[in-house]
Amino acid sequence: MLSAYEIILKKRNGLELSREEIAQVIDGYLKGEIPDYQMSALLMAIFFRGMSPVETWTLTQLFINSGEKIDLSDIPGIKVDKHSTGGVGDKTSILLAPIVAAAGVPVPMISGRGLGHTGGTLDKLESIPGFRIKYSVREFHARLARVGTCLIGPSDQLTPADKKIYALRDVTATIDSTPLIVASIMSKKIAEGTDALVLDIKSGKGAFMKNYQQAYDLAHALIRIGELAAKKTVAYITDMNTPLGSAVGNWLEIRECIECLQGKGKSDLMTLTHQLSGAMIFLGKKAASIEEGKQVSEKMVNTGNAWDKFLQIVREQEGNVDLILHPERYPESKYQQPYFAPEQGWISGIDAMQVGLVAIDLGAGRKKSDDRIDPKAGIIFHKNVGEFLRAGEPVFTLYTDKPAVQIEAVEKIARGITILSKPVAEKSMILGYLDKSILKEN
Amino acid sequence: MLSAYEIILKKRNGLELSREEIAQVIDGYLKGEIPDYQMSALLMAIFFRGMSPVETWTLTQLFINSGEKIDLSDIPGIKVDKHSTGGVGDKTSILLAPIVAAAGVPVPMISGRGLGHTGGTLDKLESIPGFRIKYSVREFHARLARVGTCLIGPSDQLTPADKKIYALRDVTATIDSTPLIVASIMSKKIAEGTDALVLDIKSGKGAFMKNYQQAYDLAHALIRIGELAAKKTVAYITDMNTPLGSAVGNWLEIRECIECLQGKGKSDLMTLTHQLSGAMIFLGKKAASIEEGKQVSEKMVNTGNAWDKFLQIVREQEGNVDLILHPERYPESKYQQPYFAPEQGWISGIDAMQVGLVAIDLGAGRKKSDDRIDPKAGIIFHKNVGEFLRAGEPVFTLYTDKPAVQIEAVEKIARGITILSKPVAEKSMILGYLDKSILKEN
Repeated sequence: MLSAYEIILKKRNGLELSREEIAQVIDGYLKGEIPDYQMSALLMAIFFRGMSPVETWTLTQLFINSGEKIDLSDIPGIKVDKHSTGGVGDKTSILLAPIVAAAGVPVPMISGRGLGHTGGTLDKLESIPGFRIKYSVREFHARLARVGTCLIGPSDQLTPADKKIYALRDVTATIDSTPLIVASIMSKKIAEGTDALVLDIKSGKGAFMKNYQQAYDLAHALIRIGELAAKKTVAYITDMNTPLGSAVGNWLEIRECIECLQGKGKSDLMTLTHQLSGAMIFLGKKAASIEEGKQVSEKMVNTGNAWDKFLQIVREQEGNVDLILHPERYPESKYQQPYFAPEQGWISGIDAMQVGLVAIDLGAGRKKSDDRIDPKAGIIFHKNVGEFLRAGEPVFTLYTDKPAVQIEAVEKIARGITILSKPVAEKSMILGYLDKSILKEN
Repeated sequence: MLSAYEIILKKRNGLELSREEIAQVIDGYLKGEIPDYQMSALLMAIFFRGMSPVETWTLTQLFINSGEKIDLSDIPGIKVDKHSTGGVGDKTSILLAPIVAAAGVPVPMISGRGLGHTGGTLDKLESIPGFRIKYSVREFHARLARVGTCLIGPSDQLTPADKKIYALRDVTATIDSTPLIVASIMSKKIAEGTDALVLDIKSGKGAFMKNYQQAYDLAHALIRIGELAAKKTVAYITDMNTPLGSAVGNWLEIRECIECLQGKGKSDLMTLTHQLSGAMIFLGKKAASIEEGKQVSEKMVNTGNAWDKFLQIVREQEGNVDLILHPERYPESKYQQPYFAPEQGWISGIDAMQVGLVAIDLGAGRKKSDDRIDPKAGIIFHKNVGEFLRAGEPVFTLYTDKPAVQIEAVEKIARGITILSKPVAEKSMILGYLDKSILKEN
């Protein structure tokens, strides 16, 4: 048996670790026998050396086996979840869950909080007064059976090894390592009991993956582990250069979701939503193809079934349904600062990273993990990329209770908006689709 | 000011750290504000990304300034020290110090303990009963002034930042990083107050640097920092495929030193010793060239001046001089196991790594840092590489108090000895010489 030192050395030198060696490290770390400083050195060595698919799958299994596993086998139907790598203005989870559940596919959904410049589904849901995102496994199971979906936060009982290691990665600059990301994502999804998974891998300025190749590589690694785990996994690579939809900020995004579920959603956001939910409905065998799944998805919105399901979710998860029905009753930000177009032209770009960072300044996100979020704060774009803008027309409005940050915030976002004198060619939201067939290519 | 996290990220991404950033990390770590787990992640990132000469020099200075600096300026003459990267059977420090001091060049010498398969000067000196290797700075200074040399162990007052970081590197597989090695070695040498430095960079099976290129790169990096510190630094790259001289093991090596200083040394060991001491005598301006320095060195041995100086060192450092004068009175190992040549031929190689590892098994080194060393234990070679061996002639003898390890130990060493039917071409001990002129090449 190798010592922790020898295991670090082996990985540092670019050799593959055996199942026993990885198990020894994970078990030892959880038991406190391997100290943080050895684990962080190993994580940095993994950052540079990577992990083989076998090593990654081993790590994923060890994460899963470190905690409880949710058994959803007694709930009829194929359970399908979605995972996004995080973007700005990305509220698709909140749209998907009611749409796909309304179509009869159970959606067990464990989401996360905002990370860096990106928003988090849990923070958005919690902007609805009373909405609970913490339930026991039994309560999660019961709601999933009754409602067809339940949106919760990570449980301490699930994948505790990932949780402990993630906290260490977060302070040692070892988050963005593909095998570590893959094991973290897939272990949580497998432990939550889903049967199939649709991945939304964001690519662009506002994403963690800055280009298509990075996004492709991550999607590839995720699908490979999905296959090893016998969970059907498909992935979309989607554009995250521009914020998704019109709102960025927790309650502002819930308001946008309400409009979307009432059939008044922006085209970029609804295109992506129907694509992802179409794939989920297909994987859940409620449609014969993804294309047919998309039609089912659109139908769920058009018939009002998705809206009804959303109200049911809010009610079942103890949220204030009255505010969903009357969003105008929600408290408003003290300061609402519009920005007017200095010149006319076509919007060719809105820098999602800038918008995400400004949203944090306004109060919509955290700089430190114990910062409190202002659910009202954020940005609403009145015009999207591709649209024509007359000089003097409002482009966006900032919402905040902090007067001090306003001027700089407006400037930062305005600087990230490109206005051209000619219309720009429309770019597709969906940059690529990957499923297990890609595994044969390599 | 960047956070510790951002500094790790910056180095991980291959960017150069500023003086302020490196200072922030070192100060923060010494104060306990930066935890071990962030430091070890940074060290691993440095392992992979390296450090520029400016970064390395900054780190060296920070190590020096973290503790006391010894001021030897009131001692007349140019103080010259030697550093070796560690080998098997390498007792040159114990020979050099009396030779060079006898030639009138002060030798302030801070040595180390055995590391891995290599022996340590301190362990060898401590095999002399009573020999003290721990003195205060004042006592060190006084002995240096009186005797012309003093051989001590690392002081807690000197370079404490290096000491703390070295202990972390030792358990996180980040020892063998060139910039970290360079900063560690050079900070200690500069803090001890030496004016000039001769480096013995070992290359080969029994060395940490396995090939010439690695040894060259390390020598280059060390000389660069020596120049930045305005300390004249020259380096020899020397062969460490074969143990040096005939003895391996602490007291066995002291006995060999006694013979060497009495003019009965083996040629490989004396060639290296005179080369290194010749360079030291030249740097100390007691010879007009290294070649002339070698002649002075030989003269110091031949006249008995070096032997007298050695007796003075032992006396001044409170060692038992009687045992040096009568080494036959030293206790002997319980088991002395000779190995006889199974066939005749010429010895073409003796695997230094195997010998070093077996020496530890016999009791001459440590497996854990708190293991006790048996000073009597070790190996004596009766024949060296290049010599002819008759079948049945003794090749080496093992000395140990542990009967259990004998058979395996004999086998391990025997397996590392290559005997050929034809004489082998003599190879030079000295593989290369480098001084500041190489800095212009790149």
